[in-house]
Amino acid sequence: MSKEMILEKQKQAVQILNEKDIDMWLTFVRETGSMKDPMMDMIAGTGATWSSAFIITKNGDTTAIIGSLEEANMKIVGTFKNIVSYLKSIKEDLLKVLKSYDPKTIAVNYSLNSALADGLTHGMYLELMDHLKDTPYKDRLVSSEDIIAALRGRKSATEIDLMKTAIVETLKIFDEVTDFIKVGKTEKEVAEFVKSIVKERGFGLAWDEEHCPAVFTGPDTAGAHSGPTDKKIEKGHVINMDFGINYKGYCSDLQRTWYVLKDGEKTAPAEVQKGFQVIVDSIQKSAEAIKPGVQGCTIDDIARNHIVENGYPEYPHALGHQVGRAAHDGGGLLAPRWERYGKLPYIPIEVGNVFTIEPRLPIQGFGIATIEEKVVVTKDGCEFISPPQKEIILIKG
Amino acid sequence: MSKEMILEKQKQAVQILNEKDIDMWLTFVRETGSMKDPMMDMIAGTGATWSSAFIITKNGDTTAIIGSLEEANMKIVGTFKNIVSYLKSIKEDLLKVLKSYDPKTIAVNYSLNSALADGLTHGMYLELMDHLKDTPYKDRLVSSEDIIAALRGRKSATEIDLMKTAIVETLKIFDEVTDFIKVGKTEKEVAEFVKSIVKERGFGLAWDEEHCPAVFTGPDTAGAHSGPTDKKIEKGHVINMDFGINYKGYCSDLQRTWYVLKDGEKTAPAEVQKGFQVIVDSIQKSAEAIKPGVQGCTIDDIARNHIVENGYPEYPHALGHQVGRAAHDGGGLLAPRWERYGKLPYIPIEVGNVFTIEPRLPIQGFGIATIEEKVVVTKDGCEFISPPQKEIILIKG
Repeated sequence: MSKEMILEKQKQAVQILNEKDIDMWLTFVRETGSMKDPMMDMIAGTGATWSSAFIITKNGDTTAIIGSLEEANMKIVGTFKNIVSYLKSIKEDLLKVLKSYDPKTIAVNYSLNSALADGLTHGMYLELMDHLKDTPYKDRLVSSEDIIAALRGRKSATEIDLMKTAIVETLKIFDEVTDFIKVGKTEKEVAEFVKSIVKERGFGLAWDEEHCPAVFTGPDTAGAHSGPTDKKIEKGHVINMDFGINYKGYCSDLQRTWYVLKDGEKTAPAEVQKGFQVIVDSIQKSAEAIKPGVQGCTIDDIARNHIVENGYPEYPHALGHQVGRAAHDGGGLLAPRWERYGKLPYIPIEVGNVFTIEPRLPIQGFGIATIEEKVVVTKDGCEFISPPQKEIILIKG
Repeated sequence: MSKEMILEKQKQAVQILNEKDIDMWLTFVRETGSMKDPMMDMIAGTGATWSSAFIITKNGDTTAIIGSLEEANMKIVGTFKNIVSYLKSIKEDLLKVLKSYDPKTIAVNYSLNSALADGLTHGMYLELMDHLKDTPYKDRLVSSEDIIAALRGRKSATEIDLMKTAIVETLKIFDEVTDFIKVGKTEKEVAEFVKSIVKERGFGLAWDEEHCPAVFTGPDTAGAHSGPTDKKIEKGHVINMDFGINYKGYCSDLQRTWYVLKDGEKTAPAEVQKGFQVIVDSIQKSAEAIKPGVQGCTIDDIARNHIVENGYPEYPHALGHQVGRAAHDGGGLLAPRWERYGKLPYIPIEVGNVFTIEPRLPIQGFGIATIEEKVVVTKDGCEFISPPQKEIILIKG
């Protein structure tokens, strides 16, 4: 992420601190080479080895308290106005900085609901509480989840542009997959083909390479979050692929569905077409209902009900998630009211959110029909930023 | 990491659980695509989206409790004997599994001392405590830091072989840098040259690309943990580079020092030679004292004292750290007794530990002399696994 984009996001963070009336946001990290708080790339643009505090305040100040060996680096990175460095322990400088602002609320990165707002490890939480134990600040910590949901969720124009390019490049690769698919090829071969293109073009993968892309051919496939297998493409298979790239730090995440014609077939059988159409319609109906202020769960209801009403089992996951620097980004989800989603289905949709819409259903004896589109939320609705798939793609058998 | 290596590490974990008399080790994670507990690669070999528990017990059982959509993937990965999958909440299955083992102690991944043993986020800790709140298990949690320090620190023969290959490949690149260095080239150009080789050969970098390699030329450089700058190499500069690759999941981490001859010089000036020799000797002396059972801080003392006795300022960091899958790996450090290192300087050295030895000192007016070697701890001492640099490398000016 460029310095300019980080400063833009910091400015947005200050606005959000004012809007939510939180005095200070403290990101407390160490050894980010082993495990990095997901917010570091967005607000700092560098890592840290020793216990380090990255502070943004409501009045617009930014202060980094870091190990002395990393001071020169922090100056070069240039994303924090004030840099305080220490040699032996962060405690004294941290308390001094806190005292100077005397914040009534200090947001820190822990969250029951959102992994992206949960970058503070339990050990670092204990260290922080130990530093604060003789101060009033130990009782002023709050979760930063609302700040982070807003900051990651409200995409800037620059961010949306990068995501659009990621989508264009991804759909090109889907088209190349259409030409590559042939009876007898395995799921793994299709995945390797996709990975070779990604590598050649210098993109990253949007998620773990073991299931990016995920490729499923025919009935009885391995399940949504698994990697491709040696299963071969056959005539009469419904094939789907879940895939995204990382383009300059921003992810795409899309799915498309193909059908391999049997001998003599000119089009997919009626039951395949019906299942596919139910997916297309459930995406259209749910997209029509998306607008600022609506809870994600009411959008999930629409697609889920449409699928169930048409006689298919409900999909065992959320209708959609936000996308950004991470494939699963932002806060609120288009998700059912299941315990495993915590409060995320209830967070109101905001302008600038980018959501996937990705229902699925099994077509008995053929495979899984699933499409994943992307929409950006506007002032009074949403717009597709991936041109929606309307027809199942036919492959000659 | 291959399935075989993961099963080897799980077996080692069971031995360690017995040695430390801990009944169960529980790794509790979610959304590992955003931030991954550093132990996941070593014990599971895959990620998880929804709240998931990876359990290893003293009697040798392994159980993964995961979201239903990831069940098929977990079976393919094949690293856990028992797989339990859930749809809406992990709570019921987690409690059922805990009850069936009724562990007296449950180690979880939080640590004040070690980032590698601190993969449990504070939000996930709160979730876990909420699941356990009506059970006796909430009072049986302990830190897994001793398990993880031993498991990551005691390298298997397979691991050491991979690390040796990483070192050989890294030293080849250092040799190529010796040929590349020329007056007028910048630190950034040297770094780009190194990165292009790494990419071409299909290796990864051992740490963040912004300062891997770190290249410093001449006096008044930016400081140990910063990235290369536009500073140009000049005659009379001492140059050093800190660099490592990731080879099949295992890291190297080495430093070498060069001197650029001035017109008419045949060798480095006396003060440069002296500073360099003090570094060489401090490495030799400290390596001679390394053996199982000794605390890291006593090793740091030896090098630190040797440098200070020779009239140089002490280095503002630890003498050495362990290396493995992460560039900073294992538990114990060869570190001074500073608060920022917690209890890590006091952990006794063990057979199979791989340590860096990397003292540094400034040579006034010339630059920084620093060498980083690697040793593996044996039954009664240690062996260099990187052939030590004994002479400063001379570059024709």
